[in-house]
Amino acid sequence: MIVNFAERAHNHNWSLDPIIRSLLDVDFYKLLMLQFIWKHFPSARVTFTTVNRTSQVRLGDMILREELVQQLEHVRRLRFGRSELVWLAGNTFYGVRGIFEPAFIEWLAEDFRLPDYDVSVRDGQFVLTFEGRWTETTLWELYSLSILTELKTRAMLKHRGELALDILYARAKSRLWSKMERLRGVPGLKIADFGTRRRHSFLWQEYVVKAMRDTLGECFTGTSNTFLAYKHDLEAIGTNAHEIPMALAAMADDESSLRHAQYRMLELWQETYAGALLIMLPDTFGTTQFLDGAPEWVANWTGQRVDSKDPFVAGDEYIAWLEKHGRDPRKKLLIASDGLDVDDILALHAYFAGTIQNGARPYEFRSAADFQDAARWTPERRLRFSAGWGTLLTNDFRDCDPESNRDFDPISLVCKVASVNGRPAVKLSDNYAKSLGPASEVARYRRIFGTAGMANVPAIV
Amino acid sequence: MIVNFAERAHNHNWSLDPIIRSLLDVDFYKLLMLQFIWKHFPSARVTFTTVNRTSQVRLGDMILREELVQQLEHVRRLRFGRSELVWLAGNTFYGVRGIFEPAFIEWLAEDFRLPDYDVSVRDGQFVLTFEGRWTETTLWELYSLSILTELKTRAMLKHRGELALDILYARAKSRLWSKMERLRGVPGLKIADFGTRRRHSFLWQEYVVKAMRDTLGECFTGTSNTFLAYKHDLEAIGTNAHEIPMALAAMADDESSLRHAQYRMLELWQETYAGALLIMLPDTFGTTQFLDGAPEWVANWTGQRVDSKDPFVAGDEYIAWLEKHGRDPRKKLLIASDGLDVDDILALHAYFAGTIQNGARPYEFRSAADFQDAARWTPERRLRFSAGWGTLLTNDFRDCDPESNRDFDPISLVCKVASVNGRPAVKLSDNYAKSLGPASEVARYRRIFGTAGMANVPAIV
Repeated sequence: MIVNFAERAHNHNWSLDPIIRSLLDVDFYKLLMLQFIWKHFPSARVTFTTVNRTSQVRLGDMILREELVQQLEHVRRLRFGRSELVWLAGNTFYGVRGIFEPAFIEWLAEDFRLPDYDVSVRDGQFVLTFEGRWTETTLWELYSLSILTELKTRAMLKHRGELALDILYARAKSRLWSKMERLRGVPGLKIADFGTRRRHSFLWQEYVVKAMRDTLGECFTGTSNTFLAYKHDLEAIGTNAHEIPMALAAMADDESSLRHAQYRMLELWQETYAGALLIMLPDTFGTTQFLDGAPEWVANWTGQRVDSKDPFVAGDEYIAWLEKHGRDPRKKLLIASDGLDVDDILALHAYFAGTIQNGARPYEFRSAADFQDAARWTPERRLRFSAGWGTLLTNDFRDCDPESNRDFDPISLVCKVASVNGRPAVKLSDNYAKSLGPASEVARYRRIFGTAGMANVPAIV
Repeated sequence: MIVNFAERAHNHNWSLDPIIRSLLDVDFYKLLMLQFIWKHFPSARVTFTTVNRTSQVRLGDMILREELVQQLEHVRRLRFGRSELVWLAGNTFYGVRGIFEPAFIEWLAEDFRLPDYDVSVRDGQFVLTFEGRWTETTLWELYSLSILTELKTRAMLKHRGELALDILYARAKSRLWSKMERLRGVPGLKIADFGTRRRHSFLWQEYVVKAMRDTLGECFTGTSNTFLAYKHDLEAIGTNAHEIPMALAAMADDESSLRHAQYRMLELWQETYAGALLIMLPDTFGTTQFLDGAPEWVANWTGQRVDSKDPFVAGDEYIAWLEKHGRDPRKKLLIASDGLDVDDILALHAYFAGTIQNGARPYEFRSAADFQDAARWTPERRLRFSAGWGTLLTNDFRDCDPESNRDFDPISLVCKVASVNGRPAVKLSDNYAKSLGPASEVARYRRIFGTAGMANVPAIV
């Protein structure tokens, strides 16, 4: 083998191995929300802040500040590429062309800039704060999460020799394949990759997404990662997130409009988008109160995403609510996206997407064979079900490290809107452990929205 | 990434990806035996023939004859390299320098040539036949086995896409690592790689051997592969094989010298080699008759290799025989080399290399922790034990193929001396399934040597 001198020298010359290679390397729902914000709230100002809920993993001790700054600076220098923008403008998303309007594409091309950031370390954790126009700040969420998570990965990789690294990835690939084998051939299954924000690394997410595509065929509905969708001709998946109701609630001038903010968001959203993009996320201030107080027209929405409630409970609650409003649940979609792994996906699919016979329980459904056993399961759905598979798809390296510690376990890192126009933003969620905001504000919101249907579950990922 | 045009073009230009890259890519015992043959039987003529005992795997249907011929031709064109010969002459083997005498090295350099071969297909199997001087023919055994085995691997690899190949190797690496983890840290364990002849491929054997070296430290005593020992500064391991007693027996002119051939081989061997190289292989015509009839001086030998008898039984038989002859078994070495895997290695090590307490059984010893539990096991050896780990070290791809069939399972392929100076060669072995030779000759040998201590066990690898 003749040495490739140029390549070898280039590899030693690398000043930066960028984590974010394109501004499209972001969840697709952020772009839908960005256009929404650009249309409806162009002058709102926000701050976003990172929080590592896995506080025992001291990122501040593991990652060099200068490495972090280099990666953040690299993202700030990126611009949307011409081909990327042509694709955004011309591609079909959820079966519709022209979802992004020309003026928005023009704004992305000409005016979009990421604002500056502040880096500090508190209790061994990096606290990244982003302040500026909501339109310019919002995308930092994904870039900052991907950067912090991958820098942690790289810090751990640094301490391993070549054999240990080889075994680490061999085991992670074997693990991934075992998961694919259990999912392959399950009739009617629908799964999307939702794992950008807590991925092991960009390249690993790309590997996983390609493996999903090659293995699961039609069952793999796409990826939330816009860059991977662009690069590999996949469907871009996602609709909206908590930041919009949180921001609208923070901007509310009185208790009545605060209470209404969660529905006001839906009104504005359906002015902007239609059809499959009408997926609500009712848990921002508690799902039960959301459904109880929802205007009749909310039942026209296409589905809901469950992000903090036990999805079996949330699905049953949604079915009952739809039936109360005279809608057919079998035409509605439930997307679960909270810390799923194969067991959960198969059990939820069994529970909602079919009829279970002979007293079987959904958790007994472990593989395609179980679903093909007509005596136990028939694909007569109660609700359309789709899995948004995140961290445990793109970052399941638990027990893969041959040095036998937990360095590669995923952590629960978030970057959330902290204030809007100078007022604190709050999320209650259906899980007390996932609430966000200053304690006094959380208490005030709880007085307003109540705590019906909320529970306390450790947030793992 | 700039395309390396030269490399890409070269990769498409390859006329041959050679399986045998060096004439040293051969079991070390073949070289010891070659010098022995060169000294004592320079004019003997032999034939070697391949037999695939896994007859349901039809190599003749899987491998193109022209591919096989190309690889065989490539080996015939190889010569021992100058650096390789300097190493053979100057290196220390088993602690002794100058094991290979200058005239032999000179002969390897100047006169050694592999004779021609015959390729035919019978019942879907390639039958390779090598005929010529014993000195020139003997090394074909290893080259032909490595070539047929790797060509089978390549034929199977051809049908897989990139992802399937990646998963195949990820799983094989995970499997290998699980084995290493169970062996790592077991006190006093001694293991050598004996896997050349049935390896998945040369590069895989090299990977495995380097992983063993890096993981097991002192417990890894070396490799039977001379080229890998040379390339990676490892100990070359091995002493002698069945072909010598088989050949001496075939050359015997009467029943008395036939009966004595197995000891005559030892007499000649100890004229040639000493110390650690005095490892006998008593099962050629049955271990029990060998020990019963052995002259007193045979008990001076350093140890024995067990290749076809249950090694627990063979070890106990050896200990009893040594004690009968007034020798201390704790100074003698038992090498097991027949289809071992981790379970066997740990159990045999527990059984022979330590004292088992509290009624524990050797098969309960599964990991380093078991050996470190002083209440169960103390390293007070009954016999020195060493494992010669072959096929299930270098070719354990069982269930690793994501396409879920058994294409990568190892097969039981042998290449054995079939005749010597025109007379058929016979092996009885302690396992009826491993006997070799024409039925009438096997029957004649059985009449002479008896069948004491023989059993019928399926030969898996």
